[in-house]
Amino acid sequence: MVQPAVWSLFREGRIQQLLELVKELHPADLVETLHEFSQEEQEKFFLLIPHEQSAIILQEMEVPEAAAVLAKLPVATAAEILKEMYSDEAVDILAELPKEKAAKLLMLMKEAGEELKELLAYEEDTSGGLMATEFVAVPENLTVGGTLAYLRKVAPSAENAYYIYVVKRDKRLVGVISLRELVVAPLETRVRQIMHKKVVKVPEDLDQEEVVRLFEKYSLLVLPVVDKKDRLVGVITVDDVMAIAKEETTEDIHKAGSITPLRMSYKNAGVLTLYSKRVGWLLVLILVNLISSGVIAAFEETLSVALSLAFFIPLLIDTGGNTGCQSATLMVRALVTGDVKLSSWFQTFGKELLVGMLLGITLGLAGWLLGVFRGGAIIGVIVSLTMLAIVVIANLVGVILPFILTRLRLDPAVASSPLITTIMDAIGLLTYFTIARMFLAP
Amino acid sequence: MVQPAVWSLFREGRIQQLLELVKELHPADLVETLHEFSQEEQEKFFLLIPHEQSAIILQEMEVPEAAAVLAKLPVATAAEILKEMYSDEAVDILAELPKEKAAKLLMLMKEAGEELKELLAYEEDTSGGLMATEFVAVPENLTVGGTLAYLRKVAPSAENAYYIYVVKRDKRLVGVISLRELVVAPLETRVRQIMHKKVVKVPEDLDQEEVVRLFEKYSLLVLPVVDKKDRLVGVITVDDVMAIAKEETTEDIHKAGSITPLRMSYKNAGVLTLYSKRVGWLLVLILVNLISSGVIAAFEETLSVALSLAFFIPLLIDTGGNTGCQSATLMVRALVTGDVKLSSWFQTFGKELLVGMLLGITLGLAGWLLGVFRGGAIIGVIVSLTMLAIVVIANLVGVILPFILTRLRLDPAVASSPLITTIMDAIGLLTYFTIARMFLAP
Repeated sequence: MVQPAVWSLFREGRIQQLLELVKELHPADLVETLHEFSQEEQEKFFLLIPHEQSAIILQEMEVPEAAAVLAKLPVATAAEILKEMYSDEAVDILAELPKEKAAKLLMLMKEAGEELKELLAYEEDTSGGLMATEFVAVPENLTVGGTLAYLRKVAPSAENAYYIYVVKRDKRLVGVISLRELVVAPLETRVRQIMHKKVVKVPEDLDQEEVVRLFEKYSLLVLPVVDKKDRLVGVITVDDVMAIAKEETTEDIHKAGSITPLRMSYKNAGVLTLYSKRVGWLLVLILVNLISSGVIAAFEETLSVALSLAFFIPLLIDTGGNTGCQSATLMVRALVTGDVKLSSWFQTFGKELLVGMLLGITLGLAGWLLGVFRGGAIIGVIVSLTMLAIVVIANLVGVILPFILTRLRLDPAVASSPLITTIMDAIGLLTYFTIARMFLAP
Repeated sequence: MVQPAVWSLFREGRIQQLLELVKELHPADLVETLHEFSQEEQEKFFLLIPHEQSAIILQEMEVPEAAAVLAKLPVATAAEILKEMYSDEAVDILAELPKEKAAKLLMLMKEAGEELKELLAYEEDTSGGLMATEFVAVPENLTVGGTLAYLRKVAPSAENAYYIYVVKRDKRLVGVISLRELVVAPLETRVRQIMHKKVVKVPEDLDQEEVVRLFEKYSLLVLPVVDKKDRLVGVITVDDVMAIAKEETTEDIHKAGSITPLRMSYKNAGVLTLYSKRVGWLLVLILVNLISSGVIAAFEETLSVALSLAFFIPLLIDTGGNTGCQSATLMVRALVTGDVKLSSWFQTFGKELLVGMLLGITLGLAGWLLGVFRGGAIIGVIVSLTMLAIVVIANLVGVILPFILTRLRLDPAVASSPLITTIMDAIGLLTYFTIARMFLAP
């Protein structure tokens, strides 16, 4: 929620009260409030408040927005703010800035900058690119009391303190204890005795989709990342994963609409970007459509015998496309969520054959009514038979295509509604005119 | 991952080792392993292991599956296992069981059953239906040391111990402290002094979509639920919210494919259910399609002048449908994620007008080439002009329809690919034949 009080205290120059209020408010609300500020006001605001507070607010913004704000501030201030951020957030923002600017900031940050440089080397969409280096690790012989005293000393930041990792001298990860377990354990126990030895952990180069899946499967809050020698190098937290899960879903949805994933928010995408992400698929689909035109041309003679056949072209090919689009949508999502496995294609095929037949009979009846009404008895028979055939075929195409794509290790989402519709047009027209010729030819 | 060791220890009757191993493994892996067991074996397995362990495993299963397992066990055992579960999970399972069975179990659970009965009264898709009653609450005058001692005594279960809620005598929620903050604070401080007074909290009857949005916005791990008198009655945890976010996305995707949301996994949906969730929209779309048939019928004369016009029907109406489907997909997702606001419809409209014109010019050129190639110079002009017009119109229809639906407080996802395709067919055909008649009529 926008906080009008922040705005008025700022404008009236009541800095003391402003700082008090800022400390109390949730950063998400502050971000919304700042959207109402002009650019100069935003700049002035960030120069007023403590760096630590600035860091918290910028972490709450979307990365490109935070980068834009930071780019406007004096470099020395920007470097101080970056130092206060979680390393994973700082790295994301640095990656968004122009190269020279980022290099200058890293230099000003000294040691902290060196650490971030290492993180910057990881691919953005891997576990290494997602992890932060803020975590709590203790040796296995430390007692519970000792660990609590250590925590009191380092006062770790909120999100990374819920698990304490247990490591060997060479930093190899050997166990984990939750803060809750630590708090309820006897003080003189050694962490070795109460730690969980089976730790869910990932290598540095795991794909982010796989990371999301692990978080969902094991209901994780934090996931440790280890290097090739099994040494703890970072942790990934659940809030970052939720944001990624949302992005990945948007990509899946865009693919289902035959749009090359934008990889940015719609709001930030310009006209030329939007054009380029869409025109490719539209041109490909036109090429596929040439088959449909070819089919009609090949059956020109049949069409000239009964011009009323043309009336039903949109009805029949659309229903085919719609049916295929439904079953493809069901399949793609079920494959993505793991609800249907590749190995169960045979059962699924059988199930959808039955569903298709029921739908075909229903829609065939509807087609018969419309055919008789607009074109007479024979046309009625032709339309209803075609409808039945098209619906059954379309339903199976919608089921099979995502399976084949997955089998070929391609993204099942390529079986988009427009692609299925276009394929079904060609098949539908061929079916229609073949059946029509059987009934109409002398 | 399936754990073959569990299976072999179970079959060989090495119960002691089996119990040890089960304690070590992650419940998600145990669930996968149990899927390889027969029903009788599953039953026997749950009778072997401690109730507490059974509760953990069942909580990890999907609700209908867990309910099916529980239904097969002796009622006394089932009641004991339910007692060990988090109240939110227990309630979900009880709601899935036949009424008499659930009533019997609740009776056997005595006090615990009484508590669950209260939770059962909430609507399933509201904050009250999602919350669990396991949380830690302390009075505001307790010291940090006293709170830690209390935690040691009650040894709260993992997921609900990361926040300690501060309440008045009458249970009114007045503050919150994270376990991390508690651990690093001086022992003699009173919780009142260090608690956060601005608590993000929700009423009992908030819609679950709103709950998901709050978790995302504030990066929450736990969200407290209060009654009308501001008394703390339960907490919602992030893992439940992630599961709901996934369900809601599946619903959105299904709607985009013109499928009435299944509200169950595809795997569990029978042939008749699938049929009923799909046939309605297909029939509605056929009715809309009657307009298209009507348009062709009305222009029968124009068509008879140049039968080759029919060749381009699928090409033109499909490209219109595909373009509209793309822009509708972009809009619906942007509206759902809040990336585009209702208030910015004017800018969005302008942006998409430009994108549509660029796409229209490109595809118009492609249409001209194909038209000339298959039907001669005049047909080339007709096809290219139609293509340009259709693409621009379709693009705007795809943008406007989701906005109008949202404005009318309807779900923008109703602007599904099939609906847009079908609408664009009628508009496309009308455009096509109107342009054709201008060029071909004497």
